[in-house]
Order: sequence, then C-alpha cells, then structure tokens
Amino acid sequence: MLDVCLLGTGGMMPLPGRWLTSLLLRYNGKMLMVDCGEGTQIPLKLAGWGFKPIDAIFFTHYHADHIAGLPGLLLTIGNSGKDTPLDLIGPPGLTRVVQSLLVICPALPFDIRATELPLPRGAPSLRGASGGAAGTGANVDGEAEADGERDGGLAPLRDVALFDSMSFQYAPADHNIPCLAYSFHIRRQGAFYPARAKELNIPLKSWSLLQAGKTVELDDGRSVTPDMVLGPERRGIKLSYCTDSRPAPALRRLFKDSALLICEGMYGDDGERENAIGKKHMIFSEAAGLARDAGVGELWLTHYSPALQNPGEHIGAARRVFPNTRAGSDLLTTKLIFPEGEGADTAR
Amino acid sequence: MLDVCLLGTGGMMPLPGRWLTSLLLRYNGKMLMVDCGEGTQIPLKLAGWGFKPIDAIFFTHYHADHIAGLPGLLLTIGNSGKDTPLDLIGPPGLTRVVQSLLVICPALPFDIRATELPLPRGAPSLRGASGGAAGTGANVDGEAEADGERDGGLAPLRDVALFDSMSFQYAPADHNIPCLAYSFHIRRQGAFYPARAKELNIPLKSWSLLQAGKTVELDDGRSVTPDMVLGPERRGIKLSYCTDSRPAPALRRLFKDSALLICEGMYGDDGERENAIGKKHMIFSEAAGLARDAGVGELWLTHYSPALQNPGEHIGAARRVFPNTRAGSDLLTTKLIFPEGEGADTAR
Repeated sequence: MLDVCLLGTGGMMPLPGRWLTSLLLRYNGKMLMVDCGEGTQIPLKLAGWGFKPIDAIFFTHYHADHIAGLPGLLLTIGNSGKDTPLDLIGPPGLTRVVQSLLVICPALPFDIRATELPLPRGAPSLRGASGGAAGTGANVDGEAEADGERDGGLAPLRDVALFDSMSFQYAPADHNIPCLAYSFHIRRQGAFYPARAKELNIPLKSWSLLQAGKTVELDDGRSVTPDMVLGPERRGIKLSYCTDSRPAPALRRLFKDSALLICEGMYGDDGERENAIGKKHMIFSEAAGLARDAGVGELWLTHYSPALQNPGEHIGAARRVFPNTRAGSDLLTTKLIFPEGEGADTAR
Repeated sequence: MLDVCLLGTGGMMPLPGRWLTSLLLRYNGKMLMVDCGEGTQIPLKLAGWGFKPIDAIFFTHYHADHIAGLPGLLLTIGNSGKDTPLDLIGPPGLTRVVQSLLVICPALPFDIRATELPLPRGAPSLRGASGGAAGTGANVDGEAEADGERDGGLAPLRDVALFDSMSFQYAPADHNIPCLAYSFHIRRQGAFYPARAKELNIPLKSWSLLQAGKTVELDDGRSVTPDMVLGPERRGIKLSYCTDSRPAPALRRLFKDSALLICEGMYGDDGERENAIGKKHMIFSEAAGLARDAGVGELWLTHYSPALQNPGEHIGAARRVFPNTRAGSDLLTTKLIFPEGEGADTAR
C-alpha cells in the first residue's frame, strides 16, 4: 500500500490558502517527497506523518518554487531527531544548488547524499551545472543513458532501486530549464503456490523465506529457488508525477499504466493554450490528454497559476478528454493498493 | 505617520497558523522590512500593502528562520514590476549569504545593493564572513565605528539616513551568532512660526520652501535660513525591533524612548529563564524589563517558541514588569503618529 499526499497545488509562489506543489509518499514506514517550495514544511506538519521518516527528496528542477523550502525543511527534519542519511535526487546542478542553500543551515545532524540524474541525450543542459554527484544515494550511473535512443528516438527508461520493493524511473520534461518527471513503482512478486510447495515436500518453516524471495537449502540437500513456488510477477503500484512541462512523448511513455498521475495544469481554460506554450506549461486539457494516452487510472491536476483562483471551475475541460480527472487540492490524500488487493499473496 | 505591521510572530520554523517573525514598515509610500523567514511573502500578501514599494530589507542575522524567505520574496517583488534598486542591510556576511541564495533566483529585474553594517568592537565575528559590502545602499562606513567605546563601554550609536526624514540606528544583540537590533526614527523639524516670518517681511510664496528646510534668497537680497522661522526639532517617531537576543545594556540604550518596541519573547514562563539563557533568547519578563528600563511607550512580544502554543496565557508575567505589553500576533498592525499630532506643523 502506498500512502499519497499532495501537500500543495500552487505554482510560482505560495499563496494564502494554497501551498506550493509538492508530493509526499509513504511506503513501509519510509517517506519520500517530490519538490519542496517555500513553506512546504507547513502542509507537511499538517499532514501529520512526521518529519523523521523522510528518506529522500526528489526535485523536478531548481526553480525557486520547487526548492526554496529545502533549507527550512532540512532544519526541521534535523529537529525531529533524524540521524540517518537523507537522499536528495534531481537533475544535474543539484550539488551546486544544495551547497549554496546550505549556507543558512550549515550544521545538520544527518548526512546529505546528493544524486544528480544524468539527463537523457538531447535534453537541455543546465548552464553552470556542476558535473559530479555528491554522493551515491541512488544507484545511478551516467553511462547507461548514452547507449542509444531507442523506442522512437526516446532514451530507454531505467529502473532505479530505492528501498524495499520500491523503485523509480524518470524522463525529461519539456520546460525552459532541465526538468524531470518521475514515476514511482512498487513491484510485486508472483503469488505463492502452497500446492507446489507441498508437491516439492518443502517444510512449512521454509515457506516464508521463499515468499520473501530467498533461496532455501533443505535438510535433504536440495536447493529450492523462489521461482519454483511463486507465480509470475504481478502488477504493482505505479504513481507518476510531472511538473513543470509541456506534453511530450517521453512523458506518455513514463506515465504508462500509472494508477495515479499527478500532473501540472497551470491554466484551466483551453483559451490559455498559447500562453501555456510560451511559458512551457500545460492547460488542463493537455494534462488530460497525457493521462488518456498513457492509460492511467486517475489524474490529479496541480501547479495552478496564482491567477487561477478556482481550478474546479475548469475541470470540465479536462474531463471531456479524460473523465477520471480531479482538481488536486492542498493535502488531498489517498492510498494506492495492489490491483489484486493487499492480502492476496497466496494463490490457492 | 508610520504604518507598522508585524507580519509573523514565530521563531525557528513556520507553523500552521503562525508565520515567522518579520516586520513591515511604511512611511511616505515607501516600505521596508526587517527579516524574511520562510513563507513571509504570504502574510505580506495578506497585509495588502503591495510588494513593489519595498525599498529595503533589514536582517537581524542569518539564521534560516530570518532569511530563508528571501529568494521567493525577491522573485515575487520582481513579478510586481519593481525596477528600482532594493537595499539589503544586515550584519557582516550578508553578501556571501545573499549571493548563495540567489542561486535559485539568478535573474531579477531590479538591482540589489547589499550593505554590511560593521559590528561594533567586541561583538562576535561571523566565521567565514566575506569582508566587503556589495554596494552602498546605506551611508555606512566601517571606520566610524572604530573610534572608541564610550558611554559605559558601548560603541556610540550612529544615525544612518534611509529616505526622507527616516533613519535608523543599530546595536549588537547578544545571540550565538552576530546579530543586530534596530531602531527606526522619523525625525521631525521644529514648528513653523508665521509670526516670525511676518516680522521678517518674508513673502508668503517662500514660506513652504522654508518649511521644507530650504534657504531662500529674497528679492531684496536678503538670505533667510529655515532656523530663522522654525522652532527647535520636535520629537519624532521611534520604533525599535529586536530578535534574537539576551537582554543587554546596548539594547536598553538603543530602545530608549521608543514609541513601540517589538521584542522577542521566546518563552513565556519565568521558569524557562535558564533555558532562555542557554539558547541566547529571552523570556517574556526579560523583554518587559528592557521595555521598562528603556522607557518605551508600548511593547509587543514576538518570536515565540513553537512549543509556546498560546502566548497570551503568559502575558501576565510580562505585564507585572511592564504593564503596556501586548502579545504580538500575526498581522498585528498599528499607526504611529507624531507625539504632538500629525497636523501641528505650524506654531501659532
């Protein structure tokens, strides 16, 4: 089960009554965030999930409305008693930006591991970005991306392990500076078949080890691997997140089959399309088009222009394209469960 | 008349329902602020005085809860259409801190003039602070401070011109990093004496020039100076602001005869005194003692600990020491007028 909380829904600047867009996820007691604009620690406190369990903060890009809240949040996380490393993950330039912002929080009680994700070939480069990653928080290497542009000119998507059975993928967004969209994936192994285990005379005490993916050496000398008693990998939980961007083929592929897509809709009215093109953002119906083309389960809109006072007024423009669209609101929260249910880990 | 708005009253971190401590002043259509923590632009918007008229931002010190809101505010000021220079003023280290924070707002449509105020001799120095000021926003020179420690070991207070008849003074606070307290002063010239002007046969058309402090050359060849028709300088408006600090003699002198003192009270209960000493903050009754000793008109408490949920509960501890104390609250606003009234510029 993946807990999801959309902390804020604003773009550009925090407003009275609208926090800046940020996402909070919780899985197996660990938490990660995407983006941290000015004030994000306030809805984080309101969400009530605590600060100490935050293990990773992803950044789509380094415009102030997506990262200016980092120094304050780091201090608040420090006050929460956290003393284990915090991973910061984002496009190239992260190390330089984080090192600069740390000028106002020089002493933190935990380590920061900054991981710069290499941009796929052809994506815009960041002027003055530092080259190397400051740490090895996520298992990413720069070379893997350079091996070609397959899949209609798109670089291959790679799965980066996070923790437990959670991983992420990313793709370049189409914004005026380097920007990434993310999808988070909780993998789910195949169901356990007790009948097969009995056929193979595997003692009961070894079943849980096999279910946990471990190979078991039996007393009679046989070696039993998980695939001998598990069915094929089942569909897991996938959530995708995108802001700031124009629609793009790479996004459609990244979002494919997500249970939930959280996507920017800077402007509500279709008449704002030219404005959105100029500013490298999307109108509601464009986000809905991405949701439809990617076959996602549900779409939440976010990252509204400060001029868009009542996003709900324009939801019809999105729903005509993709009916299961919701105008995201601050602290909108849900739980995503495995498609076959949380409890069905044993096949009968 | 000086418009005063206490934008927030929190210390350490912004909370749901409590913005970080920051002060907004408006005089003659120009605005200045003191401190800008994370989220301060939100109560600024709520105050409704606009962003474009902000001409100067003072900083007491560079802990994140006093400056982390700067990048976002600079961008919002930029969006307001401001294209005239913005003065940033604070203790040594300002240039380095501001240059670091500008990494997330590299392109602003106005110039920034950073002025580092030299610390009086004996004040703690900032590790790694850059030496020079980046601009000459306020008329401050480093040498003037070095000419001795008079007045019971205290460096002399100097008046630094701001605009119109407004100026400021500053003194070192007693905190764990270099920190300044400020007083803002609107000077008021003496009343104009029509009877003297008539005695001197000064034509009516020259009266307003003399009232404005200008010397007038009359048609008959005489030169008339303002002091010939104006009384002695009258008491103006003085407001003082202090956070974060322990009580100190230099503060008592800086605050002297302020109409309003806005002063930190991190903890309400007298039992927290040892805690306050350790963390270089004040309890309510210590702030009240400063107010009493400095002979101020009114005291507003601010910069409450996040653990202090209801500051009003402890107001009695302060009022026993200084009765005219108020527990500051977010967006608490007042107007300070000249002691003799705003309209009495002409003596009869």
